[in-house]
Amino acid sequence: MSLDGPGDADTRVVRIYQALREAVVDGRLAAGDRVPATRDLAGQLGVARGTVTSAYDRLTAEGFLESRPGSGTYVADVVLGAARPTRRRARAGAVRPLSLWDVDPGPAATRNRRLHDLSIGLPDPGLFPLETWRRLVSTQLRRSRLEEATYGGRGSWRLQHEIARMLGLSRSVVASADDVVVTAGAQQAIDLVARVLVAPRTVVAVEDPGYAAVHRLLETHRAAVRGVPVDEEGLVVDALPPEARLVYVTPSHQFPTGVTLSMARRTALLRWAAEHDAVIVEDDYDSEYRYSQQPLEPLQSLDRDGRVVYVGTFSKSLLPALRTGYLVPPRSLTPALREAKRVTTWEGDLTTQGALAEFLAEGHHAAHVRRATRVYRERRAVVLDALSRLDEVLDVVPSVAGLHVCTTFRDAGADDRAVVRRAAARGVRVEALSDRYRDQPSRPGISIGFAGIDVAEIPDAMGRLQEAVLGSAGV
Amino acid sequence: MSLDGPGDADTRVVRIYQALREAVVDGRLAAGDRVPATRDLAGQLGVARGTVTSAYDRLTAEGFLESRPGSGTYVADVVLGAARPTRRRARAGAVRPLSLWDVDPGPAATRNRRLHDLSIGLPDPGLFPLETWRRLVSTQLRRSRLEEATYGGRGSWRLQHEIARMLGLSRSVVASADDVVVTAGAQQAIDLVARVLVAPRTVVAVEDPGYAAVHRLLETHRAAVRGVPVDEEGLVVDALPPEARLVYVTPSHQFPTGVTLSMARRTALLRWAAEHDAVIVEDDYDSEYRYSQQPLEPLQSLDRDGRVVYVGTFSKSLLPALRTGYLVPPRSLTPALREAKRVTTWEGDLTTQGALAEFLAEGHHAAHVRRATRVYRERRAVVLDALSRLDEVLDVVPSVAGLHVCTTFRDAGADDRAVVRRAAARGVRVEALSDRYRDQPSRPGISIGFAGIDVAEIPDAMGRLQEAVLGSAGV
Repeated sequence: MSLDGPGDADTRVVRIYQALREAVVDGRLAAGDRVPATRDLAGQLGVARGTVTSAYDRLTAEGFLESRPGSGTYVADVVLGAARPTRRRARAGAVRPLSLWDVDPGPAATRNRRLHDLSIGLPDPGLFPLETWRRLVSTQLRRSRLEEATYGGRGSWRLQHEIARMLGLSRSVVASADDVVVTAGAQQAIDLVARVLVAPRTVVAVEDPGYAAVHRLLETHRAAVRGVPVDEEGLVVDALPPEARLVYVTPSHQFPTGVTLSMARRTALLRWAAEHDAVIVEDDYDSEYRYSQQPLEPLQSLDRDGRVVYVGTFSKSLLPALRTGYLVPPRSLTPALREAKRVTTWEGDLTTQGALAEFLAEGHHAAHVRRATRVYRERRAVVLDALSRLDEVLDVVPSVAGLHVCTTFRDAGADDRAVVRRAAARGVRVEALSDRYRDQPSRPGISIGFAGIDVAEIPDAMGRLQEAVLGSAGV
Repeated sequence: MSLDGPGDADTRVVRIYQALREAVVDGRLAAGDRVPATRDLAGQLGVARGTVTSAYDRLTAEGFLESRPGSGTYVADVVLGAARPTRRRARAGAVRPLSLWDVDPGPAATRNRRLHDLSIGLPDPGLFPLETWRRLVSTQLRRSRLEEATYGGRGSWRLQHEIARMLGLSRSVVASADDVVVTAGAQQAIDLVARVLVAPRTVVAVEDPGYAAVHRLLETHRAAVRGVPVDEEGLVVDALPPEARLVYVTPSHQFPTGVTLSMARRTALLRWAAEHDAVIVEDDYDSEYRYSQQPLEPLQSLDRDGRVVYVGTFSKSLLPALRTGYLVPPRSLTPALREAKRVTTWEGDLTTQGALAEFLAEGHHAAHVRRATRVYRERRAVVLDALSRLDEVLDVVPSVAGLHVCTTFRDAGADDRAVVRRAAARGVRVEALSDRYRDQPSRPGISIGFAGIDVAEIPDAMGRLQEAVLGSAGV
């Protein structure tokens, strides 16, 4: 396999992963074959050992490889039968998708256990109360429950009720069970909003820097997506394009900078939306984790006009694996959003919904968030402490919630991507702020997720990051 | 509050916790109210004092209660604001959805246990191997598996592999694991196809009578949906509008008539698609259940040109509750379809996917289909036998697969909806064929699902249906 050409560590991982998978599928590697030791293959390919390890980890997770402790890594047995029937490929075909789909998706966000992984967006799965969850799921897997799933129901009313209660208590969100639309995660929630509000060429304003997965989603609905700058008070409301009909914001903990939308801006944004007949999508993705007494009232509860669609998810408060989120729209949009959910994925997964309802009703969610906040608060403090030693080079963006912090370089000409690469070479994965921009001039910075790393490992990880940063700043 | 009934100490803690929380949220306990001393409440309820203390501790940790040393435990002030919000509804709002969403969704398809339910589309949940499924799900709920779910992965490769193998063996579908895109059911599968192929005003041809949920879905993508007639050989290929770029068909067991698309028509349809540069969506929703030796080769395996997108689901072969389906597209469409899946619901539910992969790999799926086919064959035979007594009034549409049969009235002027109403009055739920038409002149008929009724009940149900039918035919 060739690793020539441009590409960062992630690209190299993907290439190694694909090459090995092809070899297994082709039969060039057979079940029971031992694959080279990571160190050997890394040497042959001239890449970091961690790169090979990442590729092996992914292949193991997908069942291609299996690790035999003390012996090595082998092509899994299960692949034996697989090699034959999978030879027949579907026809190539000449039909083309619409041009808006001609985009290379790039590599997936995966966890990497060998690196110090300080990438952002994933909670610590180790904190998830797995035994409780297994019990609740098992209880849901009864015949009467399975019979309820049909086509076109509204999903678990109990879960809608529990979400309304949780949001009322912890987030002052104004909602009853009838106002809650349960979705397969925040991404589907925003997809439903786009379906019912975005026509071709509808102008949608987004934060810039911001969350590219949502921008991409909106573009697939043929929206004209416009990046609007973000400063230390959050979205710059004065810079919103007047023709925008939808504004996507993350007020509690701006993605990725972490800044909180100030009260003045909140008021201004609501007034702007009323004046321009626009809808605000408030994505409150990780504000369950709060580190300050400062109140963080959502836009939804300040909205007197019915213009805010509140979006939340259990992907951060619990796990992405639950693939469950929700919407609280103004009532004028609720029937259309329920119908949009219905025509695509019907009522969703009732087993997970039922288990989540019990999880909330029995108080496990609140208890988990409380415990996890304690853990994350400590990790965050250690990260911030380490960053204080870099304060001649990096400014920490103030934030009060969430699972990551963001920094900006004092030197606006700093090369944050080079820092990310140097950090990766030192076994630390972080992300470059400039990768998160779309229309606005980018600022260099480094964002640091603290949710996925044990507190004991943080000093070592941050020490390595410090080397990478100081290397770049020319200090 | 009552603590009657079975339950261990944990359950009692949860009940006390919930009862007190309800009281606070309802306003029965107001901020500043003192709650009973743990010893007193324990005495009243006849539980250990520690049980009450545990419940209070949890409520205190969540901010519902506060302990004032030397004084007692009180409903916390912070709850003051909280008690109201759960009562309040979201704002009404004046923002409107796009006009294409201004449609009354109508009632959901639900099971009704009071009636003899002969409606179509749902398998018998009683046949589902629940214990096996529970075991497999429980095995999937392990930490390493939950860690795999991130954002943007491809989903379970093992399930894709097992589906490719199953389709190759049982349906002659030409596919490898890399050709299979797992979805949250057939409806999402078709949604993804529409996303990547339907632009505003793209003409999509559908069977008429046909499956309204898919027609509606296509319309929400702004497709121009055109109904094409169906005769005893299935879709009338000669009647396809030349401008159609997508053709949605159910060749194995036409929905709802049950007719099989003839070999001549299959060839003609593939030729037509090549001549008109169109894509065929083949929905093979319930052909696992076959009652004839007559081969039923899918369009996908006859396609030499890469124009067929094959769609399947586990909703009929297992249960809708699993909310899992799949696509096998020509390779020219696969990356776009994977990307469309990714931008909406990421990789989906890996727990269910993992459990399904094992279910297939361990042979449970094939065994289940074999057993269920035996059961359904018997039910179908009893239904057909009863229908033979109505052959002066009703013609049975020949079919070889699936979970329902369809009949047409010999008298083209018969009022099938009146029959459905009369049947309902007699405790039997069936569906009117004329409700399934959209553009073509409708024919009256009755479709009868035999999957959800015990064989012993069929004679009574069919006797009542006979009364309803003969009432209408004026015999």
